[in-house]
Amino acid sequence: MDLRQAIQNKIDNLNKPKGSLGVLEEVAMQVALIQQTLTPELRHPAHILFGGDHGIEREGVSLSPREVTWQQMINYGRGGGGVNVLCRQHGFTLRIVDMGVDYDFDPVQHAHIIPRKIAYGTRNFLYEAAMTAAEWERALAVGREQVDACYAEGSNVLSLGEMGIGNTSPSSVLMHLFLDIPLPQCVGAGSGLDAAGISHKLNVLTEAVNHYRAVSQGFTAADTIRYFVGYEMVAAIGAMLRAAELRMVILVDGFIMTACMLAAEQLSPAVRECAIFGHCGDEGGHRLMLNAMHAWPLLHLGMRLGEGTGALCAYPIVESAVHLLNEMDNFAHAEITKYF
Amino acid sequence: MDLRQAIQNKIDNLNKPKGSLGVLEEVAMQVALIQQTLTPELRHPAHILFGGDHGIEREGVSLSPREVTWQQMINYGRGGGGVNVLCRQHGFTLRIVDMGVDYDFDPVQHAHIIPRKIAYGTRNFLYEAAMTAAEWERALAVGREQVDACYAEGSNVLSLGEMGIGNTSPSSVLMHLFLDIPLPQCVGAGSGLDAAGISHKLNVLTEAVNHYRAVSQGFTAADTIRYFVGYEMVAAIGAMLRAAELRMVILVDGFIMTACMLAAEQLSPAVRECAIFGHCGDEGGHRLMLNAMHAWPLLHLGMRLGEGTGALCAYPIVESAVHLLNEMDNFAHAEITKYF
Repeated sequence: MDLRQAIQNKIDNLNKPKGSLGVLEEVAMQVALIQQTLTPELRHPAHILFGGDHGIEREGVSLSPREVTWQQMINYGRGGGGVNVLCRQHGFTLRIVDMGVDYDFDPVQHAHIIPRKIAYGTRNFLYEAAMTAAEWERALAVGREQVDACYAEGSNVLSLGEMGIGNTSPSSVLMHLFLDIPLPQCVGAGSGLDAAGISHKLNVLTEAVNHYRAVSQGFTAADTIRYFVGYEMVAAIGAMLRAAELRMVILVDGFIMTACMLAAEQLSPAVRECAIFGHCGDEGGHRLMLNAMHAWPLLHLGMRLGEGTGALCAYPIVESAVHLLNEMDNFAHAEITKYF
Repeated sequence: MDLRQAIQNKIDNLNKPKGSLGVLEEVAMQVALIQQTLTPELRHPAHILFGGDHGIEREGVSLSPREVTWQQMINYGRGGGGVNVLCRQHGFTLRIVDMGVDYDFDPVQHAHIIPRKIAYGTRNFLYEAAMTAAEWERALAVGREQVDACYAEGSNVLSLGEMGIGNTSPSSVLMHLFLDIPLPQCVGAGSGLDAAGISHKLNVLTEAVNHYRAVSQGFTAADTIRYFVGYEMVAAIGAMLRAAELRMVILVDGFIMTACMLAAEQLSPAVRECAIFGHCGDEGGHRLMLNAMHAWPLLHLGMRLGEGTGALCAYPIVESAVHLLNEMDNFAHAEITKYF
């Protein structure tokens, strides 16, 4: 009997009507398969938040000004960001990594920020690739390095978040290019654009994609990804790839992180085995992207804060699934009439 | 400025795009209003599980046999039920109350069961009212008494669950009668009926409702409710009414507990102010009932275990909402550009 069947038998013999734990049964199955065991455990969950700025922000595609990126990165050090609150609640260690924020952080005053700056923001993909191949490799390596550090600390659960004003734009473009969804359906309000703002954003992205199409003959998937994304997204992609190699559970947050998982999947399809999608937000196209990826997130709470907050909110559900698998009595032991 | 406006101002000044916490902002608002404060706190959450058997079960409306009720009630004493696992995970005290289970529990061996048995199951509502007016009053009083005990222990959060084979049937009928939804749309698979089983259940309930209509001239809402429900449901209704008087947060579980909240609302509309709906399950009609009640549950995980497990799974979301309201920095203090 293979492991999948053995896990299914265990689930079906818990003292409950068959299938009555719904999605929790699927999550229990997935975590058990990730860890290749009948008795999975979630240990020392870690959240990594990567920050970076985007050249495309100069085109007015975001309601929020660029300085919010560095201000929030500093704010996380005070413990007052949404991500801090949720990491405390759920016992996640939190790593804040500067991948490319347009600001010089003070290494003493802002010691909570791990300095891995590749540049003061990406180039503007309306005109050129957001980063060079060398920068792409460096950013990927940082993601892998950070996951290795978490793993060394005993973590087998990884959650990822981002801070980067403008990063819904590259996410929309990746969705368009890799899932073949018309660009207008991929573009949304970000942190709060009105209809005119969304229309402008769509025009900018359409022009950018047109220009990209003219210059991208022979591009690999990696070339396409690095043409658009930010350093913080590349680090997240690298982190996902490394976490999957280490068979860690990967909690995928909202629109940006889903786009990063989509990108990671282009590079290594097996990464998806470890991905649990936490939250479907309100960003135009997020649901569409998830559907096209056949990804079914645990929560639908209308959040659009980023930082990984949606994934963090979903973590107790994953814990519940694992606890139920390990701690519920089975029919034989509980002396319950098996009623299915 | 009234309290609602003051809470809204506090929410809108947290360092995040306006509205970006989605449903969590609504939950934070509701809990703050329940407690009438800008700084709500969730203390010593309590879960009460009421058990009881149903006369209507004799008509073959449930896949599960009646003995599963007492078997599960005993099982909760071993700590191996779904409800035990989730109470441990989320720090709920758990009270198991026998309201009308068709079994004599041993007071020593099954000391975890609080004995409040009114009868060995209700009468069969296919032919007569499920309980007398005196039994109804006694069951309501038990629910109130149990909530008072939780409150005395310092709890301001109440979650409710049930164990009672056959109790989707009265729930479907209440939904039909109070929300005017055609009975076929109110009847579902319960713990796992097939199409023929559902059809039989619908026939039984149709006949019961027809008989009820012939004898119910001059009935009050209370008379209607007690004609159909089980003692465990009445206790839950009494618990909801008392918890609302005490301004406790009430977590409402799946189909059965939503029907109890619907019933409680008929008796005292204000009870809804304190109700947070935890989970929308797969039971046919649950979503329909919630929609008709304008109730928007936090989770949609396809669970149908009962016991209050859906509400328990949702609790961390409520906690997150309260933590975020209390612990996130505001724009002024965090020195973030307010970007909305």
